[in-house]
Amino acid sequence: MQNVQHSSVNLSPVSPLDFLARAGEVYPDKTAIIYGKRSHSYAEFVAHAEALARAIRAEIQPGDRVAFLAPNIPELLVAHFAVPLAGGVLVAINTRLGTGEVTEILRHSGATLLFIDAELARQHGSDWKGGTAVATTIEIADPEFGLERSGLGLGELAFDAFVAQHAGDTKDLEWGVADELGLISLNYTSGTTGAPKGVMYTHRGAYLNAVGEMHHNAFDADTVYLWTLPLFHCNGWCGPWAVTAAGGTHVCLREVRADRIWEAIDTLGISHLSGAPTVCSTIVNAEMAHAVQTPLRITTAGAPPTPAVLAQLESLDIEVVHAYGLTETYGPITVCEHQPGWAQLSTAERARMVSRQGVAMVQANRARVVTEDMADVPADGETLGEIVFRGNTVMLGYFNDPEATAAAFAGGWFHTGDLGVMHPDGYIEIKDRAKDIIISGGENISSVEVESAMSGHPSVQDIAVVGYPHEHWGERPKAYVLLRPGAQASETELLEFARGSLARYKVPDYVVFVEQLPRTATGKVTKGALRALTDRPNPVSNPR
Amino acid sequence: MQNVQHSSVNLSPVSPLDFLARAGEVYPDKTAIIYGKRSHSYAEFVAHAEALARAIRAEIQPGDRVAFLAPNIPELLVAHFAVPLAGGVLVAINTRLGTGEVTEILRHSGATLLFIDAELARQHGSDWKGGTAVATTIEIADPEFGLERSGLGLGELAFDAFVAQHAGDTKDLEWGVADELGLISLNYTSGTTGAPKGVMYTHRGAYLNAVGEMHHNAFDADTVYLWTLPLFHCNGWCGPWAVTAAGGTHVCLREVRADRIWEAIDTLGISHLSGAPTVCSTIVNAEMAHAVQTPLRITTAGAPPTPAVLAQLESLDIEVVHAYGLTETYGPITVCEHQPGWAQLSTAERARMVSRQGVAMVQANRARVVTEDMADVPADGETLGEIVFRGNTVMLGYFNDPEATAAAFAGGWFHTGDLGVMHPDGYIEIKDRAKDIIISGGENISSVEVESAMSGHPSVQDIAVVGYPHEHWGERPKAYVLLRPGAQASETELLEFARGSLARYKVPDYVVFVEQLPRTATGKVTKGALRALTDRPNPVSNPR
Repeated sequence: MQNVQHSSVNLSPVSPLDFLARAGEVYPDKTAIIYGKRSHSYAEFVAHAEALARAIRAEIQPGDRVAFLAPNIPELLVAHFAVPLAGGVLVAINTRLGTGEVTEILRHSGATLLFIDAELARQHGSDWKGGTAVATTIEIADPEFGLERSGLGLGELAFDAFVAQHAGDTKDLEWGVADELGLISLNYTSGTTGAPKGVMYTHRGAYLNAVGEMHHNAFDADTVYLWTLPLFHCNGWCGPWAVTAAGGTHVCLREVRADRIWEAIDTLGISHLSGAPTVCSTIVNAEMAHAVQTPLRITTAGAPPTPAVLAQLESLDIEVVHAYGLTETYGPITVCEHQPGWAQLSTAERARMVSRQGVAMVQANRARVVTEDMADVPADGETLGEIVFRGNTVMLGYFNDPEATAAAFAGGWFHTGDLGVMHPDGYIEIKDRAKDIIISGGENISSVEVESAMSGHPSVQDIAVVGYPHEHWGERPKAYVLLRPGAQASETELLEFARGSLARYKVPDYVVFVEQLPRTATGKVTKGALRALTDRPNPVSNPR
Repeated sequence: MQNVQHSSVNLSPVSPLDFLARAGEVYPDKTAIIYGKRSHSYAEFVAHAEALARAIRAEIQPGDRVAFLAPNIPELLVAHFAVPLAGGVLVAINTRLGTGEVTEILRHSGATLLFIDAELARQHGSDWKGGTAVATTIEIADPEFGLERSGLGLGELAFDAFVAQHAGDTKDLEWGVADELGLISLNYTSGTTGAPKGVMYTHRGAYLNAVGEMHHNAFDADTVYLWTLPLFHCNGWCGPWAVTAAGGTHVCLREVRADRIWEAIDTLGISHLSGAPTVCSTIVNAEMAHAVQTPLRITTAGAPPTPAVLAQLESLDIEVVHAYGLTETYGPITVCEHQPGWAQLSTAERARMVSRQGVAMVQANRARVVTEDMADVPADGETLGEIVFRGNTVMLGYFNDPEATAAAFAGGWFHTGDLGVMHPDGYIEIKDRAKDIIISGGENISSVEVESAMSGHPSVQDIAVVGYPHEHWGERPKAYVLLRPGAQASETELLEFARGSLARYKVPDYVVFVEQLPRTATGKVTKGALRALTDRPNPVSNPR
């Protein structure tokens, strides 16, 4: 029936690169990036991406991984375009990880280039190097924030010098890709075993997720987006691409602090920001919190916002969008769409509706809640099942991990490991997690990883780590420890030991010594029973 | 590098069908369609689409063309989902065409099913049948608007009876497609030769264009969209899909009349509508025109809006989006994005900026203005070139017309036939048309077709038809006629003759008798010279 074939006239592989190429042409003089006293137009954004891409291209082969270890600074934002433009695959590493964890990700990804922020360079020294394939390290100084190069011998090159090396390169850069199914990035996430898994994002998936984010956040050319959400979380939930697609303004932020956030809201007219509910609670509980003068929309995901926080946000005239997703779904894949009738509900009833995980985003396929044999549970709001997804914004798979990929895709659907219900109105709601994951301030903590680290202490015979509800962080880990007969160890000593190998945020808030761990008949620790214990009503949180 | 393949877990062919499937699940109770006293929820929209799809599926083979000849009634809106859901290809025929033209399109498309509105059934009788492959005709009555079935013997089946025939069909319907590059519709357009060309739209192209429309129109769940733009124009510029993607409300309209439009604006809170500048001028020049109480955005394309109309719209607090495209680009492919600085311009200066065709929409690739050897013209706002496009929202080609397709895609780009300039700010502006096309009220009129029809009159020796600027319609055709030696014919007689074979809107407004037609050295009529003549300063427009 079709008497002509598709060709380059009418078939163009989609890529997030399209968005910056267009914004650079449509809005060359518009402010694209604000950071401290710096500000860059879209023409400069393009120029920086091209300059960085030329420099990276000279150092890598197509498909090579390029790692960044940096907070939300412009260089990492630019890298979201520069790395794929150079033919590379971006690996933005969680800045909260310990040195050993960083090394493991560098090793696993096989990254050959590492860009490291001067502050993190100071923190990690050169201890991360062993066994990685990193051939070149580039250190990013940030003089405005008092961060000169560390001079610790790890940054062979300063960022500016690295880029300048290839300023003379005049070979064309292609603002597009040959294959939309090719990789654009790896995003590492803690699996249940604690071994890092590199979630593979494609150009097509990232493009479509960005389109969905643009729609559900209502990004347009007037958007001023504050970067409170870490760029290393699902590539900032595809925000570098979505905000750029709309021609909005990115406001970068080194530190997610209440004073900095409110200063940006008040002086820059921030229209949008995103983050875990922790960010919401930081904002509403700040001393300087006040009703916003210009419309502000916060998209929150990672855990449901509490009714208290929702009410506080409402009282400050801040609009909230509650979304849900995982690293494996490019960040949010469902959104709790408001229904016309909800405006008439009481604040408490509305909070009840809004705290649900919701329905598929516009680019996504229907969310399902299924039984073990993949049948849909009844939409009764009560029958528990596993939440599973399919569609273009499900990851390609785990990098170099076919077993984990096959397990995640069992039965032809991506298994979230989250247990939930389907409400009669078609909204899903999470009730529990099947996986041993604790979500603290939007970060995944593998309880198995923490257990494994702490059981390395010679006095520990048995250990179980579970989450407990925490007002600010959503959840925090706590540990139940059985000591070896005759052995002695204090809580302080065990926590200090844990800090030796784990990122600080993964270290439990407290330790309870027990004489035995509750187990099922088959010998499995009944973690539900431990979670339910309120041993310490007001524990002081581990500083992070 | 990629150690897993894409599968149905992470690769889902995109289709506009996705949008109604989702809206039906997310907004089952929300009003999806309003038409006169009728109103349908999204659950009903889905049910109607499924019922119609079941009935169509029973009558066709996958890929068969299904024709509709109807104004903007709910049945045609539903067909935008029902036909592809049934595996068919939608052919929405221009209701303004003459019977002979309808027949030609039915023949060329090979449509086997024809749905015809009762009003159009009365108009065309059964004269359209000859030589077409139409096996079943279904007549759509509209009792609320006094339109019972015509009883003219052409509607073998009433719409409701046709659908009811297959109500018992319980075989699954697949809300998705196997191949996103497959056809979803044919949209017939007048080529320069006047022979109808069936522009092929794919699921992927329609999906991406709908995404672009959704973004540039800012469609969201609060959108109330008034159907002033004919659904047969580029599938209503993909609006059935875009408004549904956002979960907005469609307001159908049988007649695009000022009183009906203002009634809808005032009583239904219309937030968006689209149309040729003619629609804008109808709105602002209406007796009941007044400043709008709720935000209204009009997207206009087909011709640049005049400064006078822009100023009038501004004074009524109506926001205007000026877009540009062709049937071959799924409707709009560029949009005149407003720049931050434009708010400070005078109304006249702003009108000057806004009347340009603009820049590529977010889903499109960069618009180019090129010389004959496909080099970009300088961006000086002066050098004339042809506007060409590439990308996912360029048609697959002309149905069963490989020669015309090859000509349109010469050099690997789609040639619009529009001559324009590239401004220093990257905005394109049309200056003239290379093709012999007159655009009147958003409709293409092929001057060659009109010439060919009128030269069939025995007294006509030579004829040239060109457009002249018209306040309401943008352009209207006028004819320059050289009579045979000794032959006689009045203007009235020639126009009456033209009405015999042409749609009314294609019939020239007036005829000027000349003693010779101006020609180039090579014998080509210099139409530019004729266009420039202002023979009748205030001609009365042909009633349409």
